[in-house]
Amino acid sequence: MAGTPELAAAAAVRVRLDLTYDGAAFSGWARQPGRRTVEAVVEEAVARLLRVPDAPRLTVAGRTDAGVHARGQVAHFDAPVQAWAHLEGQAVRRLAGLLPTDVRVFAACTVPAEFDARFSALWRRYSYRVSDDPLGVDPLRRHDTVAHRRPLDVASMNVAASALVGEHDFAAFCKRRDRATSVRRLIQMEWAREGAAVAVATVVANAFCHNMVRALVGAMFAVGDGRRPVGWPAEVLARGVRDPAVNVAPPHGLCLEQVCYPPDTGGPRCRR
Amino acid sequence: MAGTPELAAAAAVRVRLDLTYDGAAFSGWARQPGRRTVEAVVEEAVARLLRVPDAPRLTVAGRTDAGVHARGQVAHFDAPVQAWAHLEGQAVRRLAGLLPTDVRVFAACTVPAEFDARFSALWRRYSYRVSDDPLGVDPLRRHDTVAHRRPLDVASMNVAASALVGEHDFAAFCKRRDRATSVRRLIQMEWAREGAAVAVATVVANAFCHNMVRALVGAMFAVGDGRRPVGWPAEVLARGVRDPAVNVAPPHGLCLEQVCYPPDTGGPRCRR
Repeated sequence: MAGTPELAAAAAVRVRLDLTYDGAAFSGWARQPGRRTVEAVVEEAVARLLRVPDAPRLTVAGRTDAGVHARGQVAHFDAPVQAWAHLEGQAVRRLAGLLPTDVRVFAACTVPAEFDARFSALWRRYSYRVSDDPLGVDPLRRHDTVAHRRPLDVASMNVAASALVGEHDFAAFCKRRDRATSVRRLIQMEWAREGAAVAVATVVANAFCHNMVRALVGAMFAVGDGRRPVGWPAEVLARGVRDPAVNVAPPHGLCLEQVCYPPDTGGPRCRR
Repeated sequence: MAGTPELAAAAAVRVRLDLTYDGAAFSGWARQPGRRTVEAVVEEAVARLLRVPDAPRLTVAGRTDAGVHARGQVAHFDAPVQAWAHLEGQAVRRLAGLLPTDVRVFAACTVPAEFDARFSALWRRYSYRVSDDPLGVDPLRRHDTVAHRRPLDVASMNVAASALVGEHDFAAFCKRRDRATSVRRLIQMEWAREGAAVAVATVVANAFCHNMVRALVGAMFAVGDGRRPVGWPAEVLARGVRDPAVNVAPPHGLCLEQVCYPPDTGGPRCRR
């Protein structure tokens, strides 16, 4: 019975996009009037790909802030079955021609209608790169590496970080957007040296509230350079309110590396 | 006898600089009127460092072209002994404050007066990064990785490259600047995959003539994507004249990685 509401609903297909971007020239993921955002640029490319007048709305795994990068961002949208049928197998190549060089969709596949890029995610993994070289950041990595003026003690930062792992109310490290819960499960937060002058954090949680990774990293910096004792971030966490002494670390050291979904949702296997 | 010419000459000290830069915003190394060049920027910083009105002239190991990067460039200059004496041990840190973020001097040390950044060099090592991913270059590496539209066969490129190793007249791959010799000793030219989508060339020679690495890489591309047989670059070399069929590869994939000098000239050990 063509034209019934049931069939109209069935005539859509859900598409998962895996994407990479350089956040430098974007005002973050989320659409904002008059700003260049990843969401707006990708939605426009998808509209041109599908040859539909109204861009399908994207749902994203991680709403990255201005300047934050992604190597493994995931989004989904619903496309008319007909429009997608013409494209399958070519969508990724066609999108490469429609997108600017600072965003790339590296996978586009149909997924079950139950898949939701945001709510199906089991965990997100971010990296944060900082250089404590007194000479400053390597010019060839300054796009994704933050300069810290004082030497960082990675061992102390790891002691501080391990005290935060687990399920907690991270209100002290969240920029509150609404009355939603700020309870999150921090699965991993570890620092490792990459060469002598760079430290890289791996931060994994079921989900993150706004500014959470950068606020956690900022608290670690205060421990790492000796301004605060190793127990300080856990004390801040326990107080449950934003502490103005926690500086939110700069955005360009942060990269959304991976979003993990249950098996059979179209993406690569989840291996941290 | 202060003031005699002999003592005036002796009152200079030779300083070796090791430096890194992102070539994107520079019109190459060499000074050009009205252009932003690495040489001009570093000379100005050195003049401010030494507090001398006339910047000492720099002599450089590799005069990189516009857009070419460096991780291990070397230059030298002569400084008044007095001016340097005030600085030693602090020069690198002070230069970090005087230089823009796209150039960094990571070592500054006095060397014997016989040291010459250009003529003492035993060999130079360059890298060249290219992505043949049909989706284009990773947005986070597009600053130093060139996109090639067709798949590249690294094994064929290596066969072609190995035929060029040795001492030859590389006139066919040089942009002639004057009547100087174009005989060079190519010590190594090898391609390796870095992940599935990127190929990296390592190119080592006693010295390079102008455009030589990029012309060699351009010839390899023609072999790698099947436009030319593997023996073609050697044929071009043997003819000894520029062949318009050799495309000079884009600059931003190229990076001067290392310059090797004899022991005891102030730099790190030579290990390729």
